[in-house]
Amino acid sequence: MNIILLSGGSGKRLWPLSNDVRSKQFIRMLKGDSGYESMLQRVYGQIKKEDKDGNIVIATSKTQVSAIHNHLGDDVAICTEPERRNTYPAIALATYYIKEKKNLKEDDVVIVCPVDPYVESDYFQRLKALDRTAIEGKYNITLMGVEPTEASEKFGYIIPVDNKEVSKVASFKEKPSKEKAEEYIKQGGLWNCGVFAFKVGYLLNKLPYVSFDDIYNNYDNLKKTSFDYEVVEKEENIGLVRFRGTWKDIGTWNALTDVMAENTIGNVTLDEKTENTHVINELNMPLLCMGLKDIVVAASTDGILVSTKEESQYIKEYAEKIATSAMFAEKSWGSFTIIDAGKECLTIKIKLLPNHSLKYHSHERRDEVWTVLSGEGEVLLDGTRFKVSRGDTIKIPKKAKHTIKALEALEVIEVQIGKDIIIADKIIWKE
Amino acid sequence: MNIILLSGGSGKRLWPLSNDVRSKQFIRMLKGDSGYESMLQRVYGQIKKEDKDGNIVIATSKTQVSAIHNHLGDDVAICTEPERRNTYPAIALATYYIKEKKNLKEDDVVIVCPVDPYVESDYFQRLKALDRTAIEGKYNITLMGVEPTEASEKFGYIIPVDNKEVSKVASFKEKPSKEKAEEYIKQGGLWNCGVFAFKVGYLLNKLPYVSFDDIYNNYDNLKKTSFDYEVVEKEENIGLVRFRGTWKDIGTWNALTDVMAENTIGNVTLDEKTENTHVINELNMPLLCMGLKDIVVAASTDGILVSTKEESQYIKEYAEKIATSAMFAEKSWGSFTIIDAGKECLTIKIKLLPNHSLKYHSHERRDEVWTVLSGEGEVLLDGTRFKVSRGDTIKIPKKAKHTIKALEALEVIEVQIGKDIIIADKIIWKE
Repeated sequence: MNIILLSGGSGKRLWPLSNDVRSKQFIRMLKGDSGYESMLQRVYGQIKKEDKDGNIVIATSKTQVSAIHNHLGDDVAICTEPERRNTYPAIALATYYIKEKKNLKEDDVVIVCPVDPYVESDYFQRLKALDRTAIEGKYNITLMGVEPTEASEKFGYIIPVDNKEVSKVASFKEKPSKEKAEEYIKQGGLWNCGVFAFKVGYLLNKLPYVSFDDIYNNYDNLKKTSFDYEVVEKEENIGLVRFRGTWKDIGTWNALTDVMAENTIGNVTLDEKTENTHVINELNMPLLCMGLKDIVVAASTDGILVSTKEESQYIKEYAEKIATSAMFAEKSWGSFTIIDAGKECLTIKIKLLPNHSLKYHSHERRDEVWTVLSGEGEVLLDGTRFKVSRGDTIKIPKKAKHTIKALEALEVIEVQIGKDIIIADKIIWKE
Repeated sequence: MNIILLSGGSGKRLWPLSNDVRSKQFIRMLKGDSGYESMLQRVYGQIKKEDKDGNIVIATSKTQVSAIHNHLGDDVAICTEPERRNTYPAIALATYYIKEKKNLKEDDVVIVCPVDPYVESDYFQRLKALDRTAIEGKYNITLMGVEPTEASEKFGYIIPVDNKEVSKVASFKEKPSKEKAEEYIKQGGLWNCGVFAFKVGYLLNKLPYVSFDDIYNNYDNLKKTSFDYEVVEKEENIGLVRFRGTWKDIGTWNALTDVMAENTIGNVTLDEKTENTHVINELNMPLLCMGLKDIVVAASTDGILVSTKEESQYIKEYAEKIATSAMFAEKSWGSFTIIDAGKECLTIKIKLLPNHSLKYHSHERRDEVWTVLSGEGEVLLDGTRFKVSRGDTIKIPKKAKHTIKALEALEVIEVQIGKDIIIADKIIWKE
């Protein structure tokens, strides 16, 4: 299969674990074979397992590239939008990308999937059926529809012409009221899970670009519109493959706690009276719950949420108001955590993965001091290269170019002192 | 009045805000004239207001001396036990101390008060009545009794012979069951709030020591027993002064939240559905509560508590199990917070008050690096004195003697690297 995984979103619905730089697909809280894994790691691993020679391209925005490498390693194909527009431009760009990168022909089929559903292996078996149907070519676009388990108001519905395994689509319905949802289900409606397949040529023939570079360089000309609106709704000949297994949208606390293998993650103590309560504690301190019922507690360096499961679905407006800049971020080279923030000063703990390094850079308005906590590394400071290890201190005055490379896993405390400590005060240089 | 304020306890009932080094009387969460104040600050200030020329001595153990100076300043009389024994030795020691320090005579009256009741000015008016009764000398010991507002099981009861404003005590009763408590109240019983007065000579005549130094140097000979057991229960002639105003023992979360002026302290957001919920957030991050009812949330660098108010009374056994070493402590010179703890390394933020300094000291097994975040100071490093300010970095190898004095309020990040990072690895030197 040729799969474009859409990795978007920057939602606050799972605040404080999700934020502007950590979308929900990067939260490591699903039980995997070797510890906790993220939705991205889970889905990517599941595809690789079901179709080890398949082609996967992750379509995303610049802000997520580092985190994707952190989660999946360096050997992963990523198609990065030059700017955020909407799903139509993103899918078009990724289709050019996968065609050139994986040498696809006009007749080859591409499947587009969101990165964040909670599914089991039967889902990927159905993806293969979707792929076969698209290859047969009876329909211009083929969608996957999920058989509803309840009259949910959270999803769009697809109404097929009959109830066969593969059918033609009669119509699409927006997210409905409860009553409407029940009506759609009586008509044989299925949930639209955002999975669809088409032949490369089908989409590219709608577009004027001759190559990936061409569309990339003209990306700002593409309409800011959704693929649904621009392509699907205008297409008459759409097929549907039905799926009746596990499919969960775990975009809310209530849904996410539903798929947690255990009630707690991290340093958490629940007393005997606590019932149906889920706690995720990413902080380096104990968290004690007593007498709670139907509560979710989530603590990270960004903040602390304590909510009834019922109310947690309304988190978005609150999280948007209170959320500060992210205190923790995963990067391609490792991660950083802000451990203290003061007036014109900031203290950060940096963890570098072995053989990874920061970019060679300088700051105009702040001095920095590195103290190596553990590991061995190599510093490049204004052209001079030297080894550092545990206990070493490096002073980096403003305007000095600097980087550090981890020869083995490296931990550094960085104290920043200066005016306007902002991410934008950073000039990248060639080593 | 001559008042001995007993500042003891190291309870975990208010975990995570109270811990081994921060007893409940040091938690700053009562609304004062200029921001939040601690129970200690509140009671000390109340006494000073009601009796500005009175003598106050705080009887405490070594571990609290720094915190007391931090809360009340340097100009406060503290009687420090050489070791922790019980209330009988502590009160005996403090009586010698206040007699010598304040030039009291045998006939002068001393009042002993716990440091942590939540009271208003009428309480101190009654202390004056207690003082007058003790001066009159009709009784050998005079206690204050609080008129019960409910048949509480949490307090001992005092049964007086009649219901006059001042009476003779007939008997004492241990903390009773609900039924017993109701019976005592019918008999005219009052709560024993631990306040009592006696003449200096009354107590000192029971003891063989000739001076404060004498009792201090022989402190380990004193019986580890309570004042109640050793003195009060053996005394026949005890008087009682009754008090019918506000008196609250705020030693549990439920009681403490009862006297909070507002429902939240710190960076806290409550949604509209949250009811009768109190939140104290000492962390430097937002805390969001949604849909909660009758809940207490407390977050500090030591940990996070989320509990129903009902269950919070059973916190002690849990807190004792999970509590780690204190992450935050107030000292006479300022305060420190552990902001990161790793394997054989620790990062600390130190705040020094103006004109205060650390003791001149060295470590055998760890190196340290200071980076000054703000303020101006003077470092003494192995005999060499030099000025430091914002942005300066000082490397302190193991065995190097060092101190820093704040010329103005000073903030320093200290990175400790070494084996066995423990408080005991500290040698104090003369400057």
